[in-house]
Amino acid sequence: MDDKETTILELKKFVEDFVQEREWSQFHNAKNLSMALAIEAAELMDIFKWNTTAECDTMMFEENSRQEAIDELADVLIYAIAFANRNDINISNAIDQKMVKNRKKYPADKFKGHF
Amino acid sequence: MDDKETTILELKKFVEDFVQEREWSQFHNAKNLSMALAIEAAELMDIFKWNTTAECDTMMFEENSRQEAIDELADVLIYAIAFANRNDINISNAIDQKMVKNRKKYPADKFKGHF
Amino acid sequence: MDDKETTILELKKFVEDFVQEREWSQFHNAKNLSMALAIEAAELMDIFKWNTTAECDTMMFEENSRQEAIDELADVLIYAIAFANRNDINISNAIDQKMVKNRKKYPADKFKGHF
Amino acid sequence: MDDKETTILELKKFVEDFVQEREWSQFHNAKNLSMALAIEAAELMDIFKWNTTAECDTMMFEENSRQEAIDELADVLIYAIAFANRNDINISNAIDQKMVKNRKKYPADKFKGHF
Repeated sequence: MDDKETTILELKKFVEDFVQEREWSQFHNAKNLSMALAIEAAELMDIFKWNTTAECDTMMFEENSRQEAIDELADVLIYAIAFANRNDINISNAIDQKMVKNRKKYPADKFKGHF
Repeated sequence: MDDKETTILELKKFVEDFVQEREWSQFHNAKNLSMALAIEAAELMDIFKWNTTAECDTMMFEENSRQEAIDELADVLIYAIAFANRNDINISNAIDQKMVKNRKKYPADKFKGHF
Repeated sequence: MDDKETTILELKKFVEDFVQEREWSQFHNAKNLSMALAIEAAELMDIFKWNTTAECDTMMFEENSRQEAIDELADVLIYAIAFANRNDINISNAIDQKMVKNRKKYPADKFKGHF
Repeated sequence: MDDKETTILELKKFVEDFVQEREWSQFHNAKNLSMALAIEAAELMDIFKWNTTAECDTMMFEENSRQEAIDELADVLIYAIAFANRNDINISNAIDQKMVKNRKKYPADKFKGHF
């Protein structure tokens, strides 16, 4: 699969099929999914917690830790998509609209190179 | 924007442009981004923490809390995409490969309706 | 050990000895410890993520899940104490002062029974 | 208040009084409290997310960011204590027992100076 060709809807269907085959949508209420998402995000952090930022970037070039990070990032994305599926959220639109707010909150000329 | 048409690459470019315009990639190392992702996931949870699962699902039909949840989900996705951008991760492929592992770990016939 | 007799300082020394014996204070900067704390909090949540609030309370009376929760809570507390140790924070005072702020923010007569 | 004199039980009563005055124990089930704890841990991380570990340690000597960190740490501890209160957990014992497990898992001679 390729990010150039793959649409959001394809990923949504992909995740939805997995959930339906296991009849797991009964567990996928908004509260539970928000917890699952936060837990996967913590598992991604767990890879990096004791290392310096420079070491962490190096770890992203080492096969084992890189694959571990990719797997945890995938889990975060899968639960984010499952949350969108369950609650009928247009993901592209959500990102687009949030970026409009972010552009207003952080004007490029004012926030260049710092926070 | 529409999930049926929008590709992952389009969202990646969209996020990357925002980061480049602010020269923020200097802050976007793997460690920092994993923290930012976890923080946004916590902000999504914050909407639901004191309510029952049934109340939380109802909140997803009320305009204010629904919009708040959509915005926090977008932030999670934006940082997940920023993590993929910075570390040259093929998102579609990451999800596809993780789903292969998940299918092995949770065979549909064995995990139907329970965990 | 007993909560009636044990002082905060005793717990602080207890945690500090463990860290010193392993020469781990080099990893215990504020950033890393805040991540470790969040990761342990996520592990506590992991026990409860797919269950209803009623089921979760029942799980706190079942030996295995109760012990698992106690262990994760202990990990959260150990890292919170390690953070206080490393940064010379008076824990009792921190809680006392934060409660003063919380009492102002949430007056009892105004917030009785709701948020 | 002083860590040398203050017992765990005193902090427990302190937190319990605050909760009872607001009749909030109805919201303090194990699931909800685990979420609240994780959210406060994320707020502590939020102070440090874009800074290097060295900068973060410096921030702990600057009045504003130090006070912010102390307040967030207090919130983490308050919810950890509330969790112990609601579920009748002996905190000193929980930490003591978990340290026994940690000493076995990470023998000092084998883990000195590294993970």
